[in-house]
Amino acid sequence: MNEAELHRVNRAVKQWLQASRSFILGKMQQNLNVSEKTSRKDLVTNVDKENEKLLINKIRTFAPKSQILGEEGFGDQIKQTSGWVWVVDPIDGTMNFVKQHDHFAIMIALYIDGEGVLGYVYDVMNDVIYSGGPQIGVFKNDEPLSAPANLNLRDGLVSVSAPMLVHNYKNLQAVVEASSGLRVYGSAGIEMIHLLTGEIVAYLSYLKPWDFGAGKILAESLGLTATTVDGQALDMLSSDFVMVATVKAQQDILPIIG
Amino acid sequence: MNEAELHRVNRAVKQWLQASRSFILGKMQQNLNVSEKTSRKDLVTNVDKENEKLLINKIRTFAPKSQILGEEGFGDQIKQTSGWVWVVDPIDGTMNFVKQHDHFAIMIALYIDGEGVLGYVYDVMNDVIYSGGPQIGVFKNDEPLSAPANLNLRDGLVSVSAPMLVHNYKNLQAVVEASSGLRVYGSAGIEMIHLLTGEIVAYLSYLKPWDFGAGKILAESLGLTATTVDGQALDMLSSDFVMVATVKAQQDILPIIG
Repeated sequence: MNEAELHRVNRAVKQWLQASRSFILGKMQQNLNVSEKTSRKDLVTNVDKENEKLLINKIRTFAPKSQILGEEGFGDQIKQTSGWVWVVDPIDGTMNFVKQHDHFAIMIALYIDGEGVLGYVYDVMNDVIYSGGPQIGVFKNDEPLSAPANLNLRDGLVSVSAPMLVHNYKNLQAVVEASSGLRVYGSAGIEMIHLLTGEIVAYLSYLKPWDFGAGKILAESLGLTATTVDGQALDMLSSDFVMVATVKAQQDILPIIG
Repeated sequence: MNEAELHRVNRAVKQWLQASRSFILGKMQQNLNVSEKTSRKDLVTNVDKENEKLLINKIRTFAPKSQILGEEGFGDQIKQTSGWVWVVDPIDGTMNFVKQHDHFAIMIALYIDGEGVLGYVYDVMNDVIYSGGPQIGVFKNDEPLSAPANLNLRDGLVSVSAPMLVHNYKNLQAVVEASSGLRVYGSAGIEMIHLLTGEIVAYLSYLKPWDFGAGKILAESLGLTATTVDGQALDMLSSDFVMVATVKAQQDILPIIG
């Protein structure tokens, strides 16, 4: 994408995100309508759904020929990744949104012909947008973000899925033991932010495309790796057990989970 | 303690905390001197030590007849709890301080004849002091903090020690399973703050007196319980497996860990 077009898209997405934040903050003054999706630990609210519609409307107006993959199902059924594909998570960390009224994110990614072009992870309550992509680097609001230090597993904190840790799936207990310690924040978007800022060195969890679509673009733009837990390329249309990590931490983790 | 005296102490402690924060922020611009205490996951820095000395000097000047219990050992060897006893944690969450440069706390408690009078948990990087006690209630900086909702375990998030979870000590895996989910923030002070604000409903970990001294006072002042994991009274001079929780969550947890 040429630079002028990239900046035009970037400005537009940031405006949508701010509109979306205002919408969410307004809804937080009212009673939430909470319901269960697959279990009592997998929640969705009226705000997730309405915010997805808001964002999809913005995208359809701005770029009508796009395909859109949305968590709450108001986008398209996508079979192939040619052209512009947007990936939208209207509220990532719905449990945190419901129980903590904090620590959740809005995430948007733009892929063109299967390649990540722009990613956005918005820490709504702190009003900080992490944005960027391979062409422009990564920004924390308007400030360029430096690449985090390429630390070994031993020298950093890690975040892993709590149920997977308890069941020792893929030897995750040994991964945590080999690190400096475990942190669990409860939102893929918030975990991604901690990776981008170097506060954790690895994040391992079973994720859906809207959970990793934006974070993958930002992470790779800062020299982090974002792969399956076996080190393979991620399919942006499929759910998978995902590992986002520093290069060194990935190298340390692969033999442990192998 | 009479009200005028209480407010005189309260004003003084808040001044020390602000001086302490300035000291820490200044030191964060320099290289930290990090060393291991009991293991590579139990760190101490020059800033922990120097900040404890700073706080102890303030206390000795202000109230020379006090006994002081400090994490880094610059206080007194305390055998009995009569009179004024201060409990000081100069940096709680040293691993976060070292690895994240965020998410750590300064904690100070004042007990008189064994009774909690004033507690302080200072989220340093967010510049928010949670303060108060049974006589004056709890404040978030200058704003009174309401009691969190008395939620059942099922309806709230919990925080537990990660190694204890992995080893299923006291059946903690079932506690987490019965809750809405796990969060791990890596600092007793930060976990206490999440309890005070209602973002989690229970916190279970093996803690030393400086880890729970201030949080216990604040938690109880807001109607939460702070006991051993078996529901017994805490000894403010002893380490123990501690549970801080809403009354309902405590009632839900006791039979699970029984």
